[in-house]
This record gives sequence, C-alpha cells and structure tokens, in this order.
Amino acid sequence: MTYRIPDSLIAEQNAAGAAALADDYSALGRQLERRGLDIEAITTKVVDFAVAVPTWGVGTGGTRFARFPGPGEPRGVFDKLEDCATIHQLTRATPTCSPHFPWDKVRDTGELAERAKALGIGFDAVNSNTFQDQPGQPLSYKFGSLTHASKAVRDQAVAHNIECIAIGEKLGSKALTVWIGDGSNFPGQSNLNRVFDWYMESLAQIYASLPRDWRVFLEHKLNEPAFYSTVIADWGTSLMAAEALGPQAFCLVDLGHHAPNVNIEQIVSRLIRVGRLAGFHFNDSKYGDDDLDAGSIDPFRLFRVFNELVDAAERGAPGFDPAYMLDQSHNVTDPIESLMDSAIEVQRAYAQALAVDRAALADAQEASDVMLGRRLLKAGFVTDVSPILAEARRRGGGAIDPLATYRASGYRTRKAEERPAAAGSSSGIV
Amino acid sequence: MTYRIPDSLIAEQNAAGAAALADDYSALGRQLERRGLDIEAITTKVVDFAVAVPTWGVGTGGTRFARFPGPGEPRGVFDKLEDCATIHQLTRATPTCSPHFPWDKVRDTGELAERAKALGIGFDAVNSNTFQDQPGQPLSYKFGSLTHASKAVRDQAVAHNIECIAIGEKLGSKALTVWIGDGSNFPGQSNLNRVFDWYMESLAQIYASLPRDWRVFLEHKLNEPAFYSTVIADWGTSLMAAEALGPQAFCLVDLGHHAPNVNIEQIVSRLIRVGRLAGFHFNDSKYGDDDLDAGSIDPFRLFRVFNELVDAAERGAPGFDPAYMLDQSHNVTDPIESLMDSAIEVQRAYAQALAVDRAALADAQEASDVMLGRRLLKAGFVTDVSPILAEARRRGGGAIDPLATYRASGYRTRKAEERPAAAGSSSGIV
Amino acid sequence: MTYRIPDSLIAEQNAAGAAALADDYSALGRQLERRGLDIEAITTKVVDFAVAVPTWGVGTGGTRFARFPGPGEPRGVFDKLEDCATIHQLTRATPTCSPHFPWDKVRDTGELAERAKALGIGFDAVNSNTFQDQPGQPLSYKFGSLTHASKAVRDQAVAHNIECIAIGEKLGSKALTVWIGDGSNFPGQSNLNRVFDWYMESLAQIYASLPRDWRVFLEHKLNEPAFYSTVIADWGTSLMAAEALGPQAFCLVDLGHHAPNVNIEQIVSRLIRVGRLAGFHFNDSKYGDDDLDAGSIDPFRLFRVFNELVDAAERGAPGFDPAYMLDQSHNVTDPIESLMDSAIEVQRAYAQALAVDRAALADAQEASDVMLGRRLLKAGFVTDVSPILAEARRRGGGAIDPLATYRASGYRTRKAEERPAAAGSSSGIV
Amino acid sequence: MTYRIPDSLIAEQNAAGAAALADDYSALGRQLERRGLDIEAITTKVVDFAVAVPTWGVGTGGTRFARFPGPGEPRGVFDKLEDCATIHQLTRATPTCSPHFPWDKVRDTGELAERAKALGIGFDAVNSNTFQDQPGQPLSYKFGSLTHASKAVRDQAVAHNIECIAIGEKLGSKALTVWIGDGSNFPGQSNLNRVFDWYMESLAQIYASLPRDWRVFLEHKLNEPAFYSTVIADWGTSLMAAEALGPQAFCLVDLGHHAPNVNIEQIVSRLIRVGRLAGFHFNDSKYGDDDLDAGSIDPFRLFRVFNELVDAAERGAPGFDPAYMLDQSHNVTDPIESLMDSAIEVQRAYAQALAVDRAALADAQEASDVMLGRRLLKAGFVTDVSPILAEARRRGGGAIDPLATYRASGYRTRKAEERPAAAGSSSGIV
Repeated sequence: MTYRIPDSLIAEQNAAGAAALADDYSALGRQLERRGLDIEAITTKVVDFAVAVPTWGVGTGGTRFARFPGPGEPRGVFDKLEDCATIHQLTRATPTCSPHFPWDKVRDTGELAERAKALGIGFDAVNSNTFQDQPGQPLSYKFGSLTHASKAVRDQAVAHNIECIAIGEKLGSKALTVWIGDGSNFPGQSNLNRVFDWYMESLAQIYASLPRDWRVFLEHKLNEPAFYSTVIADWGTSLMAAEALGPQAFCLVDLGHHAPNVNIEQIVSRLIRVGRLAGFHFNDSKYGDDDLDAGSIDPFRLFRVFNELVDAAERGAPGFDPAYMLDQSHNVTDPIESLMDSAIEVQRAYAQALAVDRAALADAQEASDVMLGRRLLKAGFVTDVSPILAEARRRGGGAIDPLATYRASGYRTRKAEERPAAAGSSSGIV
Repeated sequence: MTYRIPDSLIAEQNAAGAAALADDYSALGRQLERRGLDIEAITTKVVDFAVAVPTWGVGTGGTRFARFPGPGEPRGVFDKLEDCATIHQLTRATPTCSPHFPWDKVRDTGELAERAKALGIGFDAVNSNTFQDQPGQPLSYKFGSLTHASKAVRDQAVAHNIECIAIGEKLGSKALTVWIGDGSNFPGQSNLNRVFDWYMESLAQIYASLPRDWRVFLEHKLNEPAFYSTVIADWGTSLMAAEALGPQAFCLVDLGHHAPNVNIEQIVSRLIRVGRLAGFHFNDSKYGDDDLDAGSIDPFRLFRVFNELVDAAERGAPGFDPAYMLDQSHNVTDPIESLMDSAIEVQRAYAQALAVDRAALADAQEASDVMLGRRLLKAGFVTDVSPILAEARRRGGGAIDPLATYRASGYRTRKAEERPAAAGSSSGIV
Repeated sequence: MTYRIPDSLIAEQNAAGAAALADDYSALGRQLERRGLDIEAITTKVVDFAVAVPTWGVGTGGTRFARFPGPGEPRGVFDKLEDCATIHQLTRATPTCSPHFPWDKVRDTGELAERAKALGIGFDAVNSNTFQDQPGQPLSYKFGSLTHASKAVRDQAVAHNIECIAIGEKLGSKALTVWIGDGSNFPGQSNLNRVFDWYMESLAQIYASLPRDWRVFLEHKLNEPAFYSTVIADWGTSLMAAEALGPQAFCLVDLGHHAPNVNIEQIVSRLIRVGRLAGFHFNDSKYGDDDLDAGSIDPFRLFRVFNELVDAAERGAPGFDPAYMLDQSHNVTDPIESLMDSAIEVQRAYAQALAVDRAALADAQEASDVMLGRRLLKAGFVTDVSPILAEARRRGGGAIDPLATYRASGYRTRKAEERPAAAGSSSGIV
Repeated sequence: MTYRIPDSLIAEQNAAGAAALADDYSALGRQLERRGLDIEAITTKVVDFAVAVPTWGVGTGGTRFARFPGPGEPRGVFDKLEDCATIHQLTRATPTCSPHFPWDKVRDTGELAERAKALGIGFDAVNSNTFQDQPGQPLSYKFGSLTHASKAVRDQAVAHNIECIAIGEKLGSKALTVWIGDGSNFPGQSNLNRVFDWYMESLAQIYASLPRDWRVFLEHKLNEPAFYSTVIADWGTSLMAAEALGPQAFCLVDLGHHAPNVNIEQIVSRLIRVGRLAGFHFNDSKYGDDDLDAGSIDPFRLFRVFNELVDAAERGAPGFDPAYMLDQSHNVTDPIESLMDSAIEVQRAYAQALAVDRAALADAQEASDVMLGRRLLKAGFVTDVSPILAEARRRGGGAIDPLATYRASGYRTRKAEERPAAAGSSSGIV
C-alpha cells in the first residue's frame, strides 16, 4: 500500500482556515452584489470547471542543458497516476489525466484503466510521440516523422498514432492530440509545400482510423525543436489542415506556441467562430515555449483568453466544447505543487471572466465607449476571486489551501521512500 | 512642358559602363554554365519581371513624430505619375503604378488615364482609404470603418470602396486592395468576434460590386494603428475571410505586417497551396512595419520568398498569379532613388532564386541531405547577379546604373523648380 | 472664467459611494491583517505617492496614419494646465506636469508659472524636442540633431536644450529629459561609433549648463522614428553615457522602449544598483512603443517594476530617488479619462507591491523555496487594492470614482464650448 | 592508427577545380579593381583569419525533446581533437579548439596537450560548466551556481572555475569563458539585486585567480535555461560586471543571446568603444538561441557585425583584439560538415566587409547621403567573394571545396568503424 493523503488531514487543515474564508467570501459576495453579480452563480460554475493534467507533468522537466530531478519522482505511469490523483484530491479541479505514448505504455492497458478508476481519475486526450526515437525503433525520426521524405518512416509514424487511438479506446479517451516536431533547421533542408503534402497524406490515414465519437486535435507550434520552419507552425496552417480532414479535426491552442506579441485571445475567437477550437494546453511563457506554470508570467493574458471562452459559452457559439489541459515543464518546483497551483490559476482566470458584467460591456462596445468597455473588462480581472476558488474546493471536499495541506502531509517525503529507484524516468516536455 | 530625362543621357551613361558590364556578364555566364545554369534564360525572365510602384511612395513619408519633406515633392497625382514614369524609364522594372483614393482622386478620371498612357505607365490595383478622416467627411473612422459598431459608418466605408472600384475600372485596374486600420487599443474596447461579423458583412457588399474580371486583395497586419487587436491581424484570418467571400478574394502579403520571427516564406507557400495568394507589398523591416526599402535589412528573407515563388511557378501551382508591388515609406531618402533601388533589389532576389539548381535541390531534399540542400539553395543567394540585372535594364533601354544616371540628370533639382508649391502633398504610408 | 469642477460635486458623488467603500476597505483591512499587513500603512504610502502628467498628453494623440481629435482639445499650454489640474483634482495623484518645448513655449514664462501655481500644479522635468523641425528653424533635423554629421546642426540642438533648462529654472523644474530620434534607417547610413562620439560631445555641453541641483535624464529607445539603429537604443548605452557625463546624469526607463520579451524590472534593478535610475515614463504596450494607458495590457509587469522600487526603498538603496511620469498617446479615449485611469493604475501597482510580505519573501528566496517565493509575490498582485486607492483619494479630497465624477461634471462638454478654435493644437507623442 | 584524410586526396580534388577557380578569381579581381579594391590584399587578410571550434561542437547536439546521434560520434576529447584537426585540415581556418570542462577533463592534461600538438591544433579559451550536475558532485546547481543562495554551492562553483584556469594553463589557453545558466523561472523566485551581489562576489574570486596574461570572458544571455530572469541577461549587465572586475574582464557576444529585433552590431560597436569586447560565439538563429550554423539564417547580419570589426581594426580602436569562436548545436547535420561550412561563412562575412570602399563610405556618411552610404556598404555584401575564400584555402594547403573533399574521403564511415562504442558521448550545447 502506498501513501495517500488522509481526508482527515484535509478536514483538519480546512477547519483552521474556515472562519477567514467565510469572512472573505461574504465580503466579496456583498461587493459583487453591488456590481450586479451573484457570487453563488460564479462559485457553482467554478465547481463544475475541470482541467486535465498531463501524466508526464508530474515528473521533473528539464532543458537541453540539464535536468535536475527531485526526490520521489514517479517511476512509471502507475506512480504518475497516484500523483495525478493527489492533485485532484486537494484541488478538486483535475479529474482526468492525459497520457503520452509510448511513455505510458504498459503491457496490460486494462490494468491501467482499473488503477485509474480506483484512484478516481479518468483519461483525457491521448498523445502520440513521434519526436523521439525509442530503443529498438526500426526507423529514425531525425529528419521527420509524419512528414519525412521517406514513406516508410511516415508509415511507421502513422501506425504509432493509430496504436495510440487503440490504447485510448481502452482507457475511455475520446481524442487524440497530434503534435510533431517536424520541420527544418535550414532554408533548403526541405520543400515547404511538399512536407505539407505528406502531413495531409499521413493525417488522412490517422483520421480514417478515428472512432466516430473521437476528435483529433492538431497542435501547432512556431518553432522548437525545428529552428527554421515547422510544418504546422501557426493556427492558419492548423485550420487549413483541420478543414481538409473533416468535422472530427480541431485546432489545439498551446499558449506558448506563438510568435512574440501575437494576440492569442483573438486566435481563440477566430477558431471558436469556425467551430474548430479543440481546446488548450495551458502554461505560461515570457520568451517562447517556456512551459512555465499557468498564470505565472502574464495572468492578464490568461484572463483575456477566458473572456473569449465565457463570451462564446454565453452566446452559445455552435460546436463550442473546448478541452482544457495543463502542459508545463516543472524544472525547479515540485511538479505536484506546480500543477495544483496552475489548475487554480486557470480557475482564477475563469472566475475573473465570470465576474465581468457582460451586458454592460456589450452596451459600452456598441456605443464605442472605449474607456468604459475597458474598465468593465478590467473590473473582472482586478477582482480577487480567491475566496470563490477556495470555497469551491472546500465544497467539493478539497483543501482550502492545497499547498499548505500538501506540505503538511509529507507526501513527497513518503514518496521518496516508496520510490527508491527513480533513475531513468521519462521527463518528456511538450 | 515639364522635364523628363532624355534618352540620350541614358545612352551616354550606359556607353561608359558597357565594357565593364560585358566583362562581368561574361564571367558570370561562364560560372553559371559550370553550375549547369544558363545565364540567358535567367536574363530573359528578369526582363519580363515587373513590380508596381505606389503613387504615394514618390512623396516623402514620415513617422508619428515628424515628416521631413524634400525638394521637388509631387503636388498631386499628375506629378506623381511623372515620377513613377521616371522610375520605370531608368529601371524598366516598374511599368505600372498603384493609386490610392481619395488621395489620387481627380475630377476627370479620363484625363488621369490619358496622362498615364502618355507617360507609358499603366495602373495596378487601386487602394481604398478608410483609416483617415477626410475634410468634409460626414462620419468619422476614429472607432473603425468597415467594422465600426455603427452601421452608418460601415455603409460610408463600403460606399467608398465601391467608388474606388468604379474609378479603377476607368483606369484599367483589375484589383482592389483593402487595408483597414480597424481594431482596438484596449482589451474590452470591442468584441473580437462581433467586429469580424461586421467585416464579413461589409466585405460581402464590396465583393458583390466587383466586376467579373477583378480580384479583391485582403491585406492583413498584426498591429498599428491599432495596438491591442487588429481585425485582420494575420494570414489565417485573411484566408478565413477570403474563403468565405468567394473565388475573387485573395490574401495580400506585406513583408512588414507579421509578428517578430515569423517565417513569412512559409506563409507564402501555404497561400499558394490553397490558390489564395494575391501578391505582395514589398518592403523591408527590422522591428515592425518599418516600411524600409526592399532588401535593405534582410535580403536573404526576400530571396527565400522568391524561392517559393519560383518553386510554385516551376511546378505550375494552380491559380498562381501574384501581383507585385512596392509599399514603402521613404523618410530619409529621395523617394525616386529608393523606389529604383527597391525595384532592383526585388529583381535581384528573383534572379538569385532563378540561379538555384532546382533538380539537384529536390534530390537532396528527397534524400534528407540537409547540408547539400541548404548549400544548393544558398548558392543561388551568394551569386552576384548584378550583371544580369544591369544587362536586363540595358536591353530594355534603361540605365546600367540608374542611380548615377538619375543624379547626372539633375531631375530632382529641375522638379524643385517646376513644383514650387509643395506645401500639403499627401504623404500616406501603408 | 473657465469651468472647473466644483468640490461640491465631488463631495456629493463621494457621499453616494461612501458606505460601499467603507465595507470594502474594512474587509480588506481584516484580510491584510490576517496576512500580517497593516492597511493603514499602505494607505498612507499611497496618499504620499505622486506621478507627473505630460502636458502634451492632454491632447489627442495619433499615429503616422491619422489623428482623430476629440471635442474640447486644449489650444495651448494654458488650456493644458487646466486639464492637468482637473486630473489632479479628482485623483490627488498628479500634483505636477511635465512641459515640452517648444510646444509649451510662451512669451512670458513667468505668467505660465503663475497660472500653474494658481491651479495648484507644479512642474516636473522639462523635455526638449529636436525630433521635429519647427517653422522658421534654420537647420533641419531630418538626418539627426545632437548626433548630426554637421556641427552646425548639433550646435543648434545643443542650444535648444540649454534654452529648455533656462525656461525650466523659471518654472521650478529640477531636471531635463533628453530624448532624441537620432539614428539611421539603413545599414551604412551612419557610422555607429561616430554618432556616439557626437552624442557625447553634445551632451557634455548640455551637462555643463545644468544647475547644480538639476539632473539630466537620458532616455533610451530601441527604435522609431529610426528603424535600423537608434543612437541611444538600450539601457547599456544610456548607462555608458550617463557614467561618462557625471553624477548629475541618470537613465530614464520608458516601459515601451525595449525589445520584445525583455525583462524590464531587471533593468530597473540594475540601474538602481549603480545609482543611475532617473525614473520612469509609464505607459503600456503590446507590440512596441504603443504608448497605451499604464496597466492596460500587462498589469503584472507594472507590478513587478514596483516590486523592485519598493524593494529598493525598503533596503535604502543609495541614491534611490526616481521621478515618475506618465507618457502616453491617447488616440481613442478622452485624454483626461486616460490620464486619471493611468495614474490610478500606477498607484495600484504600488499598493500591490506594498501588500507583499517582504520578510517572508526574503526567507523563501534564501531557502530556494521557489513555489513559496513566487506565491508570496503573487499574493500582493492578486490583492484587490481598489478600496485603498479610493480611500486615499477620498482622504485627500479627490473623487472615490474619478471617472464617474468627471463624466457627471460635464467638463468636456464645457471645454468644447470654451475652446472653439482647437484646429492645430500640438499632439506630440513621445 | 586512426584514419586521417591524406593530403594527396586534397591535392587531387583541388586539381579538378583549379581552372574554374582561376577564372572566377581573375574575373572578381578585375571587378574589384574597377571598384578601387585590391583582391590580393583581401585574400591575404582572409588567409590570416582564424576562428576556433568548440570541442563539444563535433558531437551531435539536441533539443530538450530529443537528440539523434549520427555514426562515428567522438567518444571523448581525443576523438574530438581528431575531428577538429580534420576541420582545420580542409578549411585552414580553424587552428584552435575551445575545450569545456568537466566534459573534456582527462587524467593527464599533458597527454591532451601533446595529442593536440601532434594534430596541429592549439587551444583557445577554456569553458567552465556549472549549469549541469555531474555524477558524484556534492552540491546541486538546480537553483543556481555562482549566484546560488547558499555560499557552499557558490564556493563549489568558484572552485570549479579556478580548476578550469589551472587546466587551461597547461593547455596554453589564455582565457576563461564563464557562462552560467543562473536565473529564475518565476517572479519572486529570487531577488534580482541580491543574485547580482553573489555574481560579483563569486566572479571576484575567479578573477583573483587569473594569471596576468589571461582574460575572463563574461557571456550574457537573455533567457534559457532560466525562463523569467537571467542574472547576466544582456550586454549592459555584462559590461557593468566587467568594469567592476577590472581590466582583464571582457564581454563576450553570442549572436543568439539577444532579444528579438535587437541591433547586435551596434552592441558590438559599443563594446569596442569601451575596450571591452571579448569576442564572439558565432552561430545563427531565427527564434532564440537556436545555435544554427553561422550565416545560415541572416547572413547580412553577420556581415554587418564584421563591418564593425573591420571598421574598428582600420581605425585602430584601442584594446581591440576579439576572440572568434563558433558555438553551435548540430542537430541534423554531420557536425564536421557544419563546422567547416560555418567557418567559411564567417570568413565570407569578413571578406565581404573588406570589399567595402571605406573612404567613400565615410564621405557619404559625412554628407548625410543616405542612399549612397547604404549602397556602398551593400556593395560589399553583394560581392560573391567565394573565389577569394577558395583561393585562400588552396594557398594554405586546404581544399578548394571542403565538403566535396570530405565526402570523397569517406572520413565519417571510417570513424564509424573506428569508434564503435559511442554510447554516452557528451552532447553539450552552449
């Protein structure tokens, strides 16, 4: 039996913070009421909000220069599931995890499904991996995978994606996320048009293998690991591909995969408009695909993204059903702490967006009252919704202060004892 | 009678440079032959290449801080035509000009067409202007034009575009370029989805007014004059709009309208692929929409764009028929000198792209021979094609050294005398 | 007699909001107390905080494409003073204004000083202008001013700066801000080292004219209006110049004058370290020098800057005495509304930085507890300090809700009547 | 005995290309003469030009996602020396290599020095490594090295640098390059000022250990591996540190370590001006620190850097003595091919800068003749100096076409046979 945080500890910790929370929640409720907003309506929506955690995210990430693992690293997918379950236990915000293959491949997929069920965790989108070579792999992806000049390599990559779907079906997933590192480092290395031919050819085969109730999420990225061109570099290319594939293909937005200065929330708005928004890989970044914790660098940007999502939900945009996932690289923090914190920051942005008076905002926009429109939006962001988030956790049986409770539990120390041989755990970072 | 450079001066100047050119051209011919390339085939294509000049480009441009006009500024469209004709006379590369309305609006459009014809100049795409308020204009574009919240403003902007088409028909144009400054400076100022509704609604009306043999060019831009969001901010949005409008709508690429680091040549490749590349506004930039002279900052990027164009032409990409235009702001140079130089730099990139051994390149790419592929491409760029460009001009009756000949003619000094009242000439810069 | 907002209106408006403010302020006080912070200590510091407004900021700004003036534009510096006084009246945060010459030059500087005094407004740093040509100016700044290749032009620009100091002395200013547009648009246009020689030579002359108790603020900027190189492009160059000049030279930080992605707060930290931080031109930006309202695009960045300032103040950094000024271009808002809002957003960042538990933060940093350190900092930012800001205004006689009170007063409509001839008012934007 | 390319093969290959080279060289000589330039003077300078190769560069590099090694990877520093010698043998441009410790640490440094000497290779600057943890290392650099909050960690890092100097002395090096990955991923993780205190404290100790005739090169970098702040993030910070340390401290410029859009050649100009330019890590990049082959992405930028270097050399800038090194990550090419090509591209930029008529350029700049100045500079870049580079190699005993000769030799295949156990070779990339 491995260690799990006892619910009694959570209850005990919560008891200590209950009075302060009640005071803050009540004061915020009065303030929101004066602004014409109902705190309970917001809290209810926050309770219902969920974001998936990536199985690979519970291991320490790294850069091309180094990786510095921490104690108690998960040794395989079963350990990872346990950590994912702990994140959900404390935050009540992450009921599912998103697996990555072959990293999470096991001999008995049924056993994996069972274990997750026992831990109270479901499975979100499955992720394929054709950006690394695996031991014993017949052909290399050094010069590409789904867009390699060699048909044999493309076939191998296609087959892997189809296998991911098969595993995902056993796990109860309903989507496949396809991110490739394909591209080129130098002008002249590849023909920019030809590689897109191959992308479409490969994706069409994968698409043909999708079950009826599945979706495929195409993930674009400006650069890295390719440093001159990336085959699916931007949302325009991603949309072009999705529309050519068919109604089950959608475009995934990772917040760190864009050129500097780009207005991401407008891209989100455009994809919603054409009914092709797959969902998100949430994280934050200052320079590139930094994969930092969500909301840690530009929380106002995260809020603006959620402003588009709430706007779309409230106007009933057709086909609007985004999948939310965290996708981060935890290089210098305890991954469990980072994922808990990030799930909360994503909720924060959502709650702030719910704290906007949308009717008044629409009126100001209609009147070209720039100052009023902008202040109405900012009012949502400035609101300290922390009491709402804590109350939502408390009501769901989670911790008022997940970080404090986690630290009080000694979970990591216990795991460091339980997981001695953490030598070569996969540390993938997408 | 206004001053025009006598052909005798060109001939005289050319005579002085003929021997050197012959030596250089011959040496380059031998080198290309050793590389399996035929210099005459390249020269012929260069002779046939043309790029339009913008009428507003012959006036001195400026920034929001200041504008510093030079002597002999054109006082109106008739003076502008004269300068455009001079550019073509010396370079033989710019047989058409692109007018901008209402800047170039005259009472008698027929007179304008006559004058151009007499000068040997044709008309390229017409440009509408709804990013400025004109004296006496009923409604302001301060908060938008084709996407303004007020229908009356949108109608006014639509009507202006339709008028531009009407004028253009009289001038022999076959395309309308639509660039708007619409967007927002602050989050909350406008609803990002709603303004796109209005864009589509307005464009549909303009599109319905297009003659059968016309095209409409949609020009996207990341930012400026709007500094938070731009309605048509990127090629993805531009393509979304073009596809919704119909087969006469195309996407225009201005080299300075992208986010930092973006791979522009790949965007060109994608637009060619879907048959929606309108063409180009050529210029160069280091920071943003700097509107510097073509090829002055990143000539290798310009070459890579032409590599895509030559590749598309040689593979016979369906619907491939791009319009080429310069669009620059000449703040510190004599605009005529800048436009001559820029036309030549665009030709240079074209000739360099023609100096690539494409069969060998395709083989290297097929074999994933990264180093060979990249060297084969770079070999085209490294080639000093100056003798080809000079020879193409010489054969067409232009100047071997247009700058030297222009300066020798004293054209600018003459114009400074002929055009005394150059007070308020329009200095638009798009 | 021109219209001024009656204090009775402010009192009336405040009465309506007093109870809500009291509730919010009290709830926040309890929360801060639980976090070990004293709300009154923060409020007191906010009351003492001041930021200067630029005289040119009260006119509508524009871009190189267009300027769309609003009603009641100030017709000259006396109107501007009035608007500046109104901003201070409502916000109690902007007791001084910063004049720009020759825009604000009057025949009788004494009259200007008198008028400001009567309005309760003082003068901050004076700004010189050698980036535009003025009517009747003997030599042009088209190719540079303090760094022009011609000594005569440099001398003219130096003399103008010395005149600015002389005017500033009469106004009670204690600093000269020098921003130049000098640089180049093309590689080869100027010798990058030679122009810096000239900069130092010119600045040395200006420095020699500084009164003993004055400072000169050197303002760097990456680009615009020069689009290839700017002579004082970054803080490294600015510091190099300041150190060569002497102890009265300091480096000014404008938040929009940096390359994309740059960590501005670290630059602030470095300049504080060497005792050379002049102060700030506050504004916000998404793309470049957008000159948007402070805190409107990246409020967390503004907070991080203030985190450095509070840190420096609390550790008693030697020579730490920054000057705070807003420097924005109000293109689509009422400039008075924008400047009020911006002053408040700057205060907000300051108050949030004061709401950080710095002792605990230092402990977490010492222990390399990354998650705790970051959460302690973020806790300050997440705090909704609005009640503190409103209370500080209320105590100083300002408006609880400046925007509502301003609009209720009808100030702008009155000014539109009083200032009929607002044709050619200067709309400088730096 | 391991395989080395026989000089006879080089001679044989050169014989085949000699006639073409003679024709091209002669034609270029005539053209340059017409432009007032002496080809022999340029060729002589190119012959004398040298750039160091990094020992770690001969192994295949990678990204955080994957590394795809090639055949015949060097298994240790002795193999690396051999590859470095081969690069020099064919290009005659890379007489020295730059070692990295502990990667290149051997028991008997004397043996290493002997082996290099036998191969005709010298040693350039030594590089320390405190951005990774080594097996058995007592303290971790996860949270910093020279700037870690713990003095014990800082001491360990200082000691390592001092050891590097000691090894370097035995190898004949005269400089230590210090690049650290220290910084933070999140606001609040560290105190931006405090970490700089520690940097200065640590560097002062290292500096005190420098032999009199040594220099220390401080290398700045904007981001990566730290993604919020980097302690030595820019040239301003680097210069601040160098000046505080003393006359033996200099600032190293890596072309990929800057923010987007930054004008690198102007930074070079500024560092030359204050006599603190250490030299370069040459590479190229499109997005960030991509570490692509020199000249492969923006060859005009590389040329502009060399324009500053030639300008400084010709004006005799005091203390001007830069060290040149390649620093690249070869992820998809044969590292030997990439390093040969890159050394040649660096030479190309140098030769192009020598092909500028500097007297005429200075005159044009003095006259503010923007167009002429820019064309004179560009004329150097447009010149195809390939014949000069090939001739310089030929005269030195190298290959006219190094890539062709290298491939003809079968060197890589031989090495794949000779170096069977290439399992865990270090693949560092800085």
